Amino acid sequence: MSKNLTTRSDDYSKWYNELVVKADLAENSGVRGCMVIKPYGYAIWEKMQAELDRMFKETGHSNAYFPLFVPKSMFEAEEKNAEGFAKECAIVTHYRLKNDPDKDGKLMVDPNAKLEEELIVRPTSEAIIWSTYKNWVQSYRDLPLLINQWANVVRWEMRTRLFLRTAEFLWQEGHTAHATKAEAIEESEKMMNVYADFVENFMAIPVIKGLKTESERFAGAEETYCIEALMQDGKALQAGTSHFLGQNFAKAFDVKFANVEGKLEHVWGTSWGVSTRLMGALVMTHSDDQGLVLPPNLAPIQVVIVPIYKSDEQLTEITTAVNELTAQLRKLRISVKYDDRTTQKPGFKFAEWELKGVPVRVAVGPKDIENGTFEVARRDTLTKEVVSKDNIVNHIGDLLERMQVDLFNKAMQYRESHITEVNSFEEFKSVLETKGGFISAHWDGTAATEEKIKDLTKATIRCVPLDQKKEEGVCVFSGAKSSGRVLFAKAY
Amino acid sequence: MSKNLTTRSDDYSKWYNELVVKADLAENSGVRGCMVIKPYGYAIWEKMQAELDRMFKETGHSNAYFPLFVPKSMFEAEEKNAEGFAKECAIVTHYRLKNDPDKDGKLMVDPNAKLEEELIVRPTSEAIIWSTYKNWVQSYRDLPLLINQWANVVRWEMRTRLFLRTAEFLWQEGHTAHATKAEAIEESEKMMNVYADFVENFMAIPVIKGLKTESERFAGAEETYCIEALMQDGKALQAGTSHFLGQNFAKAFDVKFANVEGKLEHVWGTSWGVSTRLMGALVMTHSDDQGLVLPPNLAPIQVVIVPIYKSDEQLTEITTAVNELTAQLRKLRISVKYDDRTTQKPGFKFAEWELKGVPVRVAVGPKDIENGTFEVARRDTLTKEVVSKDNIVNHIGDLLERMQVDLFNKAMQYRESHITEVNSFEEFKSVLETKGGFISAHWDGTAATEEKIKDLTKATIRCVPLDQKKEEGVCVFSGAKSSGRVLFAKAY
Repeated sequence: MSKNLTTRSDDYSKWYNELVVKADLAENSGVRGCMVIKPYGYAIWEKMQAELDRMFKETGHSNAYFPLFVPKSMFEAEEKNAEGFAKECAIVTHYRLKNDPDKDGKLMVDPNAKLEEELIVRPTSEAIIWSTYKNWVQSYRDLPLLINQWANVVRWEMRTRLFLRTAEFLWQEGHTAHATKAEAIEESEKMMNVYADFVENFMAIPVIKGLKTESERFAGAEETYCIEALMQDGKALQAGTSHFLGQNFAKAFDVKFANVEGKLEHVWGTSWGVSTRLMGALVMTHSDDQGLVLPPNLAPIQVVIVPIYKSDEQLTEITTAVNELTAQLRKLRISVKYDDRTTQKPGFKFAEWELKGVPVRVAVGPKDIENGTFEVARRDTLTKEVVSKDNIVNHIGDLLERMQVDLFNKAMQYRESHITEVNSFEEFKSVLETKGGFISAHWDGTAATEEKIKDLTKATIRCVPLDQKKEEGVCVFSGAKSSGRVLFAKAY
Repeated sequence: MSKNLTTRSDDYSKWYNELVVKADLAENSGVRGCMVIKPYGYAIWEKMQAELDRMFKETGHSNAYFPLFVPKSMFEAEEKNAEGFAKECAIVTHYRLKNDPDKDGKLMVDPNAKLEEELIVRPTSEAIIWSTYKNWVQSYRDLPLLINQWANVVRWEMRTRLFLRTAEFLWQEGHTAHATKAEAIEESEKMMNVYADFVENFMAIPVIKGLKTESERFAGAEETYCIEALMQDGKALQAGTSHFLGQNFAKAFDVKFANVEGKLEHVWGTSWGVSTRLMGALVMTHSDDQGLVLPPNLAPIQVVIVPIYKSDEQLTEITTAVNELTAQLRKLRISVKYDDRTTQKPGFKFAEWELKGVPVRVAVGPKDIENGTFEVARRDTLTKEVVSKDNIVNHIGDLLERMQVDLFNKAMQYRESHITEVNSFEEFKSVLETKGGFISAHWDGTAATEEKIKDLTKATIRCVPLDQKKEEGVCVFSGAKSSGRVLFAKAY
């Protein structure tokens, strides 16, 4: 297992791309901008899905499935939404191939099989879902509708990167409909909090909750709540968004309900989503120059056991001890792999499991058998200790819990030390170029200033933090009055 | 809850369509041929998914995800497979919309955003997956590859029906690669057996295992194993298929491995899938004129409890008793719904839960509270009995298990009484028209006879049963020699 991984300090971006491929998470496919999620990467995504799905159901949501295609006329009904996605849509225009008369054995699009109306491959499903909700809602008794969908979506991005930005990606999208504005806002906030809880406690990635500015808002939303994370290179990553849609889609698709007094009103909506992009956040928050570092909650293999032996007799003894340990760990629902491949040496195995981010590695050799011990190494700190077999099961259980917390704390410490308050545009630029991270600065609240700052520095307003303090100040760029700081950063 | 369901004897096909919609399983969408799977229907599909996924993993398979799109040149590489699907492909030709200069607020396909190569929306994923396997396989050590994908696929069917035949559907597709022919055949058979086990024991639907004839085989396969079920109207339904692909895709995509001697060989492949079509099989096997009948294993709600009361005081007493029962049932992982809606009368609720196929209904009124009893009704037989509260939990647990078995046995009895041996073409036609079901008949083994029979009767050979007896005979149609009977039927 020769890792040959580029180091983060050498080239962070290259390190990321190499790591995703070498750790068997994903790879580019033969289809422009589309990735193949490999079994090891998909197993991590499945763990995310299972936990999120549990959280959605606990908060009253049900899953459903809506069509992949959106007829153009339906797509364009909510104009802002349509405009926001029009430039990156895959469009189905034909429904049949035929033999190419000029090329033997080749096929061509059959010009006689042109669709009367083009179909857009969903970049997001508000249009198709709200066109359905129209028939599902008549009275206040039909509300709220609390529905989630696990699906693939397509956005024709020009520059793609594994997990972070791909033409096709997997996600979940919640779409809810409510009788009142207050209830819809409460739902948007609730789902932002569910996301924050999941990303912080399950993925060990600290996030900042906030509101997007108007220019960064979801196309068709009245308000976008977001959670923002910080990667090890000082760039921010939007980890999830939850949108209060007002009555925009209800009006575009004529979704009305009779309220308690029998009066017709438009429904209020929300939508919210997280995607396979979270895989990118996971890699970039915790991993190191040796490879992936996975929080125990997300690790498909939590403990790997490597036997170290010279004779078959030694291996037999070791395997007996390992089988006992494995059985005990599995009872605690800890996932264990015994790597007894005879084709590879221990050093190769160590490197491979480090690359793949397995949280705990146990090595056991003849000396350990003699002494009744195991050698336990933790992936995050790369430290080792010798543990008595009497205590090994509890030790590993505790260690996994501790690592989950330690990873969060480490990331939090990095994040906290990378929020810098600045009070001038010179300082803004200098911090951005030298230190990176979030820059907390006064802003005059105008889209014009926001855009100029972006043009000059590539930094965008990541969010207006929900816990923003009221503070009199002047905009770092325009000098106009401001009543609180917002967070800027370069972002993925 | 006015059901107004067409009866099966009146119009089986109409009964099916109405039931799927009225029981909230699915509905047609605004997109031609595509359905919306509603939360109640999707909850059943999720139970199927969970069980199948568990079975796939237990047999050594991992999940992964491959792109939705297949470039045309890749699609056409395996010629038979391409030919088989060419006539029903949705094709993406453009990647951008723009404002329509002639119609304010409307969009049009941007003619400048034409793809250099068209993309086929996957009708099945052999092409994209084998083009990937090429890079994953070098040596015999990389084999077998045992991979499954949960995905949506698109086949542009002209006549669609909810669940049974839709332009887009959800499925799982397993794609495996092996070093030897024997191992690949073993895998195809194993997965056919996994499907049979699942459909019989989890869905309570008996199936016949068999091989497809050459003309009914999957395009690109050397052999197609199938499981065939029989619906209540005497038509057959193919519930799952497992294909031995030989080296066809390995050759088309140049997937070779170095064997133990270091010699390069083409890999052997299989693929296998079941889809949301199983939802149709579920509905058509068990349901009746009152609505859905769900096997307990697949019921999102296994027990519904309806209070029957006149005063608030009575309701309070009932609710106390119900809460106790609910807690006990949930401990046994039985899913329970207490339908205490005040907006509907008991009769309405009874009819609604019958329509939705909830296996067990418990009713409880003041008399029951007085006597320490519950009234328990089972959905399949529509029978009721009064059960003492001391015994109610065990009673319900046992009843659910019994219903699962009884449903299978009832379907099996129907199936067994609808396999008819015939020895002349007259008899063939007469049984087909009057009784329906599977017709066991001698066939001369030629595609020509098979096609003529299909043209004349609409019956196809569903399979050559794996347990076919050697029996000398003559083909019912041609009179030519035959060595065993095959099963014909009209089919969905």
